[in-house]
Amino acid sequence: MAPITDVLISEVGPRDGLQSIDTLMPTSAKISWIKDLANCGVAEVEVGSFVSAKLLPQMADTAQVVAGCKDIKNLEVAVLVPNFHGALAAIDAGAKKISLPFSVSETHIRKNLNRSHAEVLQDIAKIRQHIDSLPIEQRPHFEASLSTAFGCTLEGPIPEDVVVEKAELLMANGAAEVGLSDTTGYANPAQVTRLVKRIKSAVGNEKLTSIHLHNTRGLGLANALAAYQAGIRTFDSSQGGLGGCPFAPGASGNIVTEDLVFMFEAMGVNTGINLEKLIEIRKFLLTTLPNDPVYGFTPDAGLPKGFELTSNFNR
Amino acid sequence: MAPITDVLISEVGPRDGLQSIDTLMPTSAKISWIKDLANCGVAEVEVGSFVSAKLLPQMADTAQVVAGCKDIKNLEVAVLVPNFHGALAAIDAGAKKISLPFSVSETHIRKNLNRSHAEVLQDIAKIRQHIDSLPIEQRPHFEASLSTAFGCTLEGPIPEDVVVEKAELLMANGAAEVGLSDTTGYANPAQVTRLVKRIKSAVGNEKLTSIHLHNTRGLGLANALAAYQAGIRTFDSSQGGLGGCPFAPGASGNIVTEDLVFMFEAMGVNTGINLEKLIEIRKFLLTTLPNDPVYGFTPDAGLPKGFELTSNFNR
Repeated sequence: MAPITDVLISEVGPRDGLQSIDTLMPTSAKISWIKDLANCGVAEVEVGSFVSAKLLPQMADTAQVVAGCKDIKNLEVAVLVPNFHGALAAIDAGAKKISLPFSVSETHIRKNLNRSHAEVLQDIAKIRQHIDSLPIEQRPHFEASLSTAFGCTLEGPIPEDVVVEKAELLMANGAAEVGLSDTTGYANPAQVTRLVKRIKSAVGNEKLTSIHLHNTRGLGLANALAAYQAGIRTFDSSQGGLGGCPFAPGASGNIVTEDLVFMFEAMGVNTGINLEKLIEIRKFLLTTLPNDPVYGFTPDAGLPKGFELTSNFNR
Repeated sequence: MAPITDVLISEVGPRDGLQSIDTLMPTSAKISWIKDLANCGVAEVEVGSFVSAKLLPQMADTAQVVAGCKDIKNLEVAVLVPNFHGALAAIDAGAKKISLPFSVSETHIRKNLNRSHAEVLQDIAKIRQHIDSLPIEQRPHFEASLSTAFGCTLEGPIPEDVVVEKAELLMANGAAEVGLSDTTGYANPAQVTRLVKRIKSAVGNEKLTSIHLHNTRGLGLANALAAYQAGIRTFDSSQGGLGGCPFAPGASGNIVTEDLVFMFEAMGVNTGINLEKLIEIRKFLLTTLPNDPVYGFTPDAGLPKGFELTSNFNR
């Protein structure tokens, strides 16, 4: 049984990180990395994405990665799916959690998935129907995430009323939960606070518990703090801030798992993760991906003198 | 008259930034940079430090820099002083605000200033006496900052009771105000919240209004957010995160002014600073200090599409 923690850190490096870099990590290396993460106390990993292998060759082996990881102790195996077809493949492979990204910006969703809001909502309803037809023990947790919720690189600002309305639509069409996603790195803490409160109020406190933040403009951890204060308890992040970085230096896409864990542990918020061990396994990334930037302030600076982890990590 | 803003950004690049790098910036370049900053709406700049020129040759021209900046419109010229002697020089030069760093860690203060707590407190009392002997219009604002308040690289954790006690001592000995300083980059948001509340409660709400944060472990802006929420309204930061960086890449010492201004402006908190202009004048640093790292996520990523500054900047 996984230990009780105050927050859940959902590591997205093997999906969001690897899909954003050119290097193809071999399947065995992915599985080995994910096992190491679980061994540090990371309780959820998004291990891949069931998208077209033509579009994202880095994700072509996702079924094998799920198969190689689904029996790892104390680990929830999550995957991203773009559509009904992907959801079927994810369920067949044995994923325990599936997330479908729903761009609140229709311009963005058309560009990203080549479909309209209505079409994606239909897929969500079909996925729900299919899940409900399965024996209970085979049903995955099904989340839809509100991408571009904090603004869109194509449309600019997204009205908050629209985000709330889409959250309600996602729930009405069969998502078990919605997530908030700052796809573009546009979010600020005040906006995070407002949107979390409004969506929780619209769809139910327990139906919005997770957030996916980027550090594009350096506000990643400040936004995570605001989200935590507003009641969010699941945080996506990427080891080494891997992936998604058109801007150098330091302007990573995803927030850095090591820095996020340091923030929470320093605050006395239990993550269940052994930070020293987590920093130790960065070596794997540095040797496996020698040409890709690996970020993180805390790993570079080291832990403060006399720092004590709050997490009771003793597996 | 300076415009009314929600927060005061106190730019410390010309002092904390330049003292931390080997490059000597010529006096005329310093003055030119500070004028440019004021022209962007930066209302306070710490322009230098009255320390021994042997110890910090980068600060040897501080009197000339003060002289060259004290008549800049809408600009408060602040300086750092380590002792009574430095305070006299600062007042002679015409500084409007003087800050004396008082390490809460006695090990650190002995190493930094080569003196005991008792000796520094005596100096503070002498500075107060001297200031009070001056005609009112010549009296500078005199702040003492609680360095290593969030932990010390030599002593480790500093008990919060001790920080509060030192704040009271600084006020009792004649400081007009105390500031909180995370010299070591050890602070976390929960600790910031607790310490700000405790010190305000001990010395008076209006006697602690400023904080000096570092981004050593990536938590700089999250700590700034927590400080803002707890009632802090003056924030030290350094353009380009200049200076104080033994760790690379991205692990700057000071928090980056551009990112801090972006966070506040995005939240609707008026800084009085024109962010686009501020990013524009980074070119000066890049050309004047070609061998020193210049940081900042927001400048690299650019402002979000459709982003509007809240500051009514129209000088």
